[in-house]
Amino acid sequence: MASTVIKGGTVVTADLSYAADVKIEDGVIVEIGKGLSGDTVLDAGGCYVMPGGIDPHTHLEMPFMGTYSADDFESGTRAALAGGTTMVVDFVLPGQGQGLMDAAQMWHNKSGRAHCDYSYHMAVTWWGEKVWQGMEESVKAGITSFKHFLAYKGALMVNDDELFASFRRVGELGGLAMVHAENGDVVAELTAKLIAEGNTGPEGHAYSRPPQVEGEATNRAIMIADMTGVPLYVVHVSCEEAHEAIRRARQAGKRVWGEPLIQHLTLDESEYFNPDWDHAARRVMSPPFRNKAHQDSLWAGLMSGSLSVVATDHCAFTTEQKRFGRGDFSKIPNGTGGLEDRLPMLWTHGVGTGRLTPNEFVAVTSTNIAKILNCYPKKGAVLVGADADLVVWDPEREKTIAASTQQSAIDYNVFEGQKVKGLPRFTLTRGHVAVTEDKVEGREGHGKFVPREARPAVNRALSQWKDLTAPRPVQRSGIPATGV
Amino acid sequence: MASTVIKGGTVVTADLSYAADVKIEDGVIVEIGKGLSGDTVLDAGGCYVMPGGIDPHTHLEMPFMGTYSADDFESGTRAALAGGTTMVVDFVLPGQGQGLMDAAQMWHNKSGRAHCDYSYHMAVTWWGEKVWQGMEESVKAGITSFKHFLAYKGALMVNDDELFASFRRVGELGGLAMVHAENGDVVAELTAKLIAEGNTGPEGHAYSRPPQVEGEATNRAIMIADMTGVPLYVVHVSCEEAHEAIRRARQAGKRVWGEPLIQHLTLDESEYFNPDWDHAARRVMSPPFRNKAHQDSLWAGLMSGSLSVVATDHCAFTTEQKRFGRGDFSKIPNGTGGLEDRLPMLWTHGVGTGRLTPNEFVAVTSTNIAKILNCYPKKGAVLVGADADLVVWDPEREKTIAASTQQSAIDYNVFEGQKVKGLPRFTLTRGHVAVTEDKVEGREGHGKFVPREARPAVNRALSQWKDLTAPRPVQRSGIPATGV
Amino acid sequence: MASTVIKGGTVVTADLSYAADVKIEDGVIVEIGKGLSGDTVLDAGGCYVMPGGIDPHTHLEMPFMGTYSADDFESGTRAALAGGTTMVVDFVLPGQGQGLMDAAQMWHNKSGRAHCDYSYHMAVTWWGEKVWQGMEESVKAGITSFKHFLAYKGALMVNDDELFASFRRVGELGGLAMVHAENGDVVAELTAKLIAEGNTGPEGHAYSRPPQVEGEATNRAIMIADMTGVPLYVVHVSCEEAHEAIRRARQAGKRVWGEPLIQHLTLDESEYFNPDWDHAARRVMSPPFRNKAHQDSLWAGLMSGSLSVVATDHCAFTTEQKRFGRGDFSKIPNGTGGLEDRLPMLWTHGVGTGRLTPNEFVAVTSTNIAKILNCYPKKGAVLVGADADLVVWDPEREKTIAASTQQSAIDYNVFEGQKVKGLPRFTLTRGHVAVTEDKVEGREGHGKFVPREARPAVNRALSQWKDLTAPRPVQRSGIPATGV
Amino acid sequence: MASTVIKGGTVVTADLSYAADVKIEDGVIVEIGKGLSGDTVLDAGGCYVMPGGIDPHTHLEMPFMGTYSADDFESGTRAALAGGTTMVVDFVLPGQGQGLMDAAQMWHNKSGRAHCDYSYHMAVTWWGEKVWQGMEESVKAGITSFKHFLAYKGALMVNDDELFASFRRVGELGGLAMVHAENGDVVAELTAKLIAEGNTGPEGHAYSRPPQVEGEATNRAIMIADMTGVPLYVVHVSCEEAHEAIRRARQAGKRVWGEPLIQHLTLDESEYFNPDWDHAARRVMSPPFRNKAHQDSLWAGLMSGSLSVVATDHCAFTTEQKRFGRGDFSKIPNGTGGLEDRLPMLWTHGVGTGRLTPNEFVAVTSTNIAKILNCYPKKGAVLVGADADLVVWDPEREKTIAASTQQSAIDYNVFEGQKVKGLPRFTLTRGHVAVTEDKVEGREGHGKFVPREARPAVNRALSQWKDLTAPRPVQRSGIPATGV
Ligand SMILES: [Zn+2]
Ligand SMILES: [Zn+2]
Ligand SMILES: [Zn+2]
Ligand SMILES: [Zn+2]
Ligand SMILES: [Zn+2]
Ligand SMILES: [Zn+2]
Ligand SMILES: [Zn+2]
Ligand SMILES: [Zn+2]
Repeated sequence: MASTVIKGGTVVTADLSYAADVKIEDGVIVEIGKGLSGDTVLDAGGCYVMPGGIDPHTHLEMPFMGTYSADDFESGTRAALAGGTTMVVDFVLPGQGQGLMDAAQMWHNKSGRAHCDYSYHMAVTWWGEKVWQGMEESVKAGITSFKHFLAYKGALMVNDDELFASFRRVGELGGLAMVHAENGDVVAELTAKLIAEGNTGPEGHAYSRPPQVEGEATNRAIMIADMTGVPLYVVHVSCEEAHEAIRRARQAGKRVWGEPLIQHLTLDESEYFNPDWDHAARRVMSPPFRNKAHQDSLWAGLMSGSLSVVATDHCAFTTEQKRFGRGDFSKIPNGTGGLEDRLPMLWTHGVGTGRLTPNEFVAVTSTNIAKILNCYPKKGAVLVGADADLVVWDPEREKTIAASTQQSAIDYNVFEGQKVKGLPRFTLTRGHVAVTEDKVEGREGHGKFVPREARPAVNRALSQWKDLTAPRPVQRSGIPATGV
Repeated sequence: MASTVIKGGTVVTADLSYAADVKIEDGVIVEIGKGLSGDTVLDAGGCYVMPGGIDPHTHLEMPFMGTYSADDFESGTRAALAGGTTMVVDFVLPGQGQGLMDAAQMWHNKSGRAHCDYSYHMAVTWWGEKVWQGMEESVKAGITSFKHFLAYKGALMVNDDELFASFRRVGELGGLAMVHAENGDVVAELTAKLIAEGNTGPEGHAYSRPPQVEGEATNRAIMIADMTGVPLYVVHVSCEEAHEAIRRARQAGKRVWGEPLIQHLTLDESEYFNPDWDHAARRVMSPPFRNKAHQDSLWAGLMSGSLSVVATDHCAFTTEQKRFGRGDFSKIPNGTGGLEDRLPMLWTHGVGTGRLTPNEFVAVTSTNIAKILNCYPKKGAVLVGADADLVVWDPEREKTIAASTQQSAIDYNVFEGQKVKGLPRFTLTRGHVAVTEDKVEGREGHGKFVPREARPAVNRALSQWKDLTAPRPVQRSGIPATGV
Repeated sequence: MASTVIKGGTVVTADLSYAADVKIEDGVIVEIGKGLSGDTVLDAGGCYVMPGGIDPHTHLEMPFMGTYSADDFESGTRAALAGGTTMVVDFVLPGQGQGLMDAAQMWHNKSGRAHCDYSYHMAVTWWGEKVWQGMEESVKAGITSFKHFLAYKGALMVNDDELFASFRRVGELGGLAMVHAENGDVVAELTAKLIAEGNTGPEGHAYSRPPQVEGEATNRAIMIADMTGVPLYVVHVSCEEAHEAIRRARQAGKRVWGEPLIQHLTLDESEYFNPDWDHAARRVMSPPFRNKAHQDSLWAGLMSGSLSVVATDHCAFTTEQKRFGRGDFSKIPNGTGGLEDRLPMLWTHGVGTGRLTPNEFVAVTSTNIAKILNCYPKKGAVLVGADADLVVWDPEREKTIAASTQQSAIDYNVFEGQKVKGLPRFTLTRGHVAVTEDKVEGREGHGKFVPREARPAVNRALSQWKDLTAPRPVQRSGIPATGV
Repeated sequence: MASTVIKGGTVVTADLSYAADVKIEDGVIVEIGKGLSGDTVLDAGGCYVMPGGIDPHTHLEMPFMGTYSADDFESGTRAALAGGTTMVVDFVLPGQGQGLMDAAQMWHNKSGRAHCDYSYHMAVTWWGEKVWQGMEESVKAGITSFKHFLAYKGALMVNDDELFASFRRVGELGGLAMVHAENGDVVAELTAKLIAEGNTGPEGHAYSRPPQVEGEATNRAIMIADMTGVPLYVVHVSCEEAHEAIRRARQAGKRVWGEPLIQHLTLDESEYFNPDWDHAARRVMSPPFRNKAHQDSLWAGLMSGSLSVVATDHCAFTTEQKRFGRGDFSKIPNGTGGLEDRLPMLWTHGVGTGRLTPNEFVAVTSTNIAKILNCYPKKGAVLVGADADLVVWDPEREKTIAASTQQSAIDYNVFEGQKVKGLPRFTLTRGHVAVTEDKVEGREGHGKFVPREARPAVNRALSQWKDLTAPRPVQRSGIPATGV
């Protein structure tokens, strides 16, 4: 069997850093040590050998208003690999009334072109017996995390009683509850008011979704997760208000994780005030960018562990698509890219400033989410037996981000002009060297679906605690009315 | 005109304490000073002359499942006066589809027998054009505070979009938004689960409404009040979770007040674990009693100003009525008494321990709510021109609370057996001496409706700030697409 | 006796607003009502009649490095009146080894020229039996508040054990403990390091006293006040860190008040980055100005009640004096002016924006501190019998602040160029009309010392609670060693 | 070379759980996998194979008032092994004026009898040039963590300026700052007051060190660590106040860790109210046990990551030694045992209730501290190349803790009577099977000193951030005085 050896680098994991070579056969790490040899040798001199990034939040070829998000599994995973990310987790979005596994099949059809491995979260976009049943099938099929939208009223949004019922079901199945946390009722009201008042530009999008509505929804989802005894993962935490709710929950011993996006860590609301409509509209996503104080909060969360994972919510729309929303911000497709830029941007602004150690960088880009999603150490690790999803990271390589050189299918990049230091020398997906510096040689269809087991240790522990502290009836004997 | 002079006491207001006599004519204070004389002289030697208590949260003769809460405006206001309270504010509860002013008329019909003055809050129990219109009429009729229930699903509860619409309307009208804050969806789910599991006793009531669901709803109401620019008053704050949400809001400069009840300040959840079903059922109210840690939180809130008003939510049901809920706690009528006991209990446990000064006692039992409800200084003050609603408080008088000696129509008292020190020597309602120690000589029908003006200073200031910080559109010129 | 009537205005107190005339005789308010007449009539049409401001934090003619702060009791109180402030509280600063009453005498000598009433705080600048004794004499002489410096190492600073001993003494005497809260050890270390590194400019002053050192010292003082059972007043709270410590204490029911300065509410640290050395040096005070996030925190504190009083720490040094610190920021005299500008600046940025109501404005500029210092309602009130220290406030009058037109003796003004709206039409000090718009007609020596009583209600309540919760010995019988 | 194989167990690390055998040669793990064989086989069927515990906080044979703590390195490490702990870190305590390396030599002399590996923290108990020099030697000798006492006034305590200087030195050397955080000044004052009032029993010890004094000192140490740019480790965090300070620091991105003790997690203050003097005195340690609310806080900290390590502060004194403090609690030697009980108690109350997962158990008993102290993965890991310090944990084994069966030299046990479930089947120290269930076969002198490297990744990152954000001088040109 042909072997590949990554030689002369420093292995950097979430845990520790040490000089070692890494030997790969058949897509799997077979040996880690000094002085290894193999058929192909990759020079990692001066580099860090890290688990490839995992982006747990993408929307590739997502259906939207009769069209689709511009990056599909082909271009999206190509962009991922170019930036050192070797696995993506996409969201299966069933239509109203559609069965969960039917929807999953639609996603499997799309993901056949992927260059790297992938997994899915299942979205609970409506509620009924059929969904309740489908959730068990979903878990059996390896899709164990369930996304709920508290926003997008009239479309994806679920109410509190539906949320309660679904969370309880997730808990029974040993899965992970996830939320997009913005109060959809309030967003709808604010949107209507803004448009009525002539606030129709892209900045109106930001005005319609202030931090308060995100904080509120996060707090509500946490309470319902607590009442139903299920671990909770809050996607795209963008602001102090939501972060505060998560901190408060964790501080009470609740099992809650928060995911900031690289966009919210590095870009701010001033983008929406750019006089160029296109510039602003291209940055429209939910939640919107926030001010610097919120950024500081998110960085501190990564440092202290109150936030766990950096993702992208990659959902790329072209300028042409964005222009659907001319004259009405509520019609601008929500989403930005980021798959290719997440690792270099986070390294530059995190490790490059001293806010994060290299080990913490690996933790928040790869290992933490692999553990949370229960696919560790197959993914997220540099261990013998783990998939050889690796990035050889050159901390001295520099570039300026530009749409003109990106893999993504769209015509712009929200990080345009940003200088980054720290880039992949090689990216390997299950042993295949897909990226060598600027050269991308992906294999369409190489990527495989990663099924995941339910009921990891955190679920078991939480259920045990909830059983122990469950309400107990008081022993009584009829109605004596002894007192007054 | 006949005059009454309260002689030899110390006037104690929210502001200050000083020795002075108080002279009353025609129901109004006409002079405050030394050496006053009048036709009738009340000896206040050794006593504090304070504004009579105002209880802003009562439900007298409230319709319930085909019957009514046992204390009506006659017995309820008689109990109030006996305990030093000279004004109550009751809740007008329109039926589904009923006009607000029709409902108000029903309340006016009932209140004709009141011994002391009273005012109303208007409840928004459903939503529609008719309600939207009725709110303006309500304000014109002097009912400027609007209560909303986030609990009691299928009955009084309003959804978030209704809440938003109603709060916005209250804001436009310069009124005060009020909430009963518990997440009704979650309470319903928990209730169903508990009963399904055989947790049918009164303790199940407490289990079905844990602090988390109160904290969540409080937080949500605060957010919606913030988004609509209206001051918010949270009734019956019973726990740290709700108090925390209020503190957090205030700390961000939001105009939010919290009202703990005397019950939650002095009684705890162990009452529900009493083996006597009647004992437990008689304590069933929403929110339920909490543990000692929550009590400490509430007391600290009164001391620091993060909580503003002590009320009772007086809603008395007889043991017979309570027994509707045998075998199913969700059918136990919610409510307890307290009107007669609020002041003595708070004095004993507050002033008697040093947690509150006498001035702070007056503030939280009378003056603060008079200001919040915009009927100060007609009520809540010892000032020339103010109504002579006064209590002459004897800090040395003691008694043991007992159902056998109470004014309330019900057959028990949740404070039974509690020793209190500090009781009224006299209570005056608009100059009439209704109480002389244990002797109660009320005048049925003496009480008058107190209309209140909208748009007090806090509303005006808040609106000014919201206007100043409202979203502004960015100036743009078409779609240039200058960047990438 | 000649009488003065303020006619046609709206009386605005901390409590309420109402149209009334105010009649004054012999320096005291004798009547409040409609249609009053008197010998002199002041037209208050369109104006608010408010209690004159009380500035509880000034340093007039303060000895410093062989010279004195430039504004003495004459020019300082003249500036005060010009801006609507009718009482100042200055700090008696005993030298090392000096008796407290000796120092107080020195201050009495200086204050003879005052145009308005004044009181003193006593500083505890060293510790010993003589100080311990002097504190009782101080209280008897009407100086009941005791200031402690946790900064100014080697000069005014006291250690933790001295602080503990002094706070305990203050508690016994029923006084008020006060602190300047910055960690003096750390400031000294940071200062030395900065200068060693060539950071010698005025900005170094700000670098040497970051918010963290203020937050720490505030937190420490609060703990020691709690352990000794004494109410605490924290002067010049400038940052979120100190404010957070105060909020946390209050939230636990502790008796702690915080005082932000008008400077910290309206100016920020960018002043120190001005390339003009003089500009920056003139703004050198302790604590230094902070960034906008800290300003937001302070404003929210005033709105929510976690901060209680707005002061100035008026301590004016001329440009020439400031230049003592050329080449070494630690030699720049600490202090700025503000006495004349406090009320107009706070009105403009507080009431003018809707952050404060007019009543809250009165509370934080006058009434709250009168209560805390126990000179209410002689001061801080519009009540019959109160001193006629009044300001007739014209909310429409405007000006641009300029050193060229100020009363202060110094040659600049840190608020230079600020436009204010809301200014005194008249200022009265005990009935004397000292200010009529721009015309200042003070009477040198008119001002009198205001002695204050110890042991107000808050002290009594706190002592009661501390006694109730004091440690109790466990009853034991020798040493049985019954267990293992 | 003789090999040992642990067969049939489940390897449980901080990271993951998986079925595998572990092969050991020469004290080191040489292989991990399925179906391994070796000379000696240990049956791990039904067991977890975990890194041996590391107790980072012990005081073995600690000099005290002319005697020594009763457990020395022999009995102490024997007790450790019996309970599954395979490494201890003791504190070198230099006398006043003593050189650091002289003191280290004294500790090396004592540790020669250790049954398991050990390392040291160096205490900075006085300050001077000699200490400053000695710190560098200490780091070179592998002792890179430096303990500071904010309590024990007149003995071990250092002042704030000494703390600042020492922390700065630790920062320069790339070491770890540690604190015992209680305000020694206040403890001394409270102690004197209590004894003067006749509160001389062991409960007085608890009264003299309330949570407030621990919270304050923790907060102060954090601020000074922040100002000097050094990571901080707070030992024996016993209460919410200290935990809150740590959370607040972490939430601002500061590098601070907290260490609760197993005693504070499982025992409470009621122990001091036991009428048996001996019972109470045996529990005297600093900080003292707290109430249940504090316990909840500590557990939640372990769950959320705001607290990182569970230790014991093992410092055992016999009943006879404890009786030195008859009639004066301040003379009772401070300290309790715990080395043998830490793991079983934490497993029972943590994993056994669902508060912790088995992986989190490993993290807080072993792996986290190995990383913090920079001896990972030599210690705290189950990895090829790591020391074979392992515990084979039988989750079904039970016992009742009893002094009669313990290894410790003292005559009692603070956990006496506690039932635990989850105990070692085997404990291996560098491959030697020292414990087989109840049988302890240690080798006196087998233990080796573990030197540690300075400047781990966290230190490097922190220094980078501090450099990036260091104060910069403003460019100026003389003194122009352009403004006013
Ligand atoms: Zn989303
Ligand atoms: Zn998304
Ligand atoms: Zn209610
Ligand atoms: Zn109610
Ligand atoms: Zn000062
Ligand atoms: Zn000052
Ligand atoms: Zn210690
Ligand atoms: Zn210790």
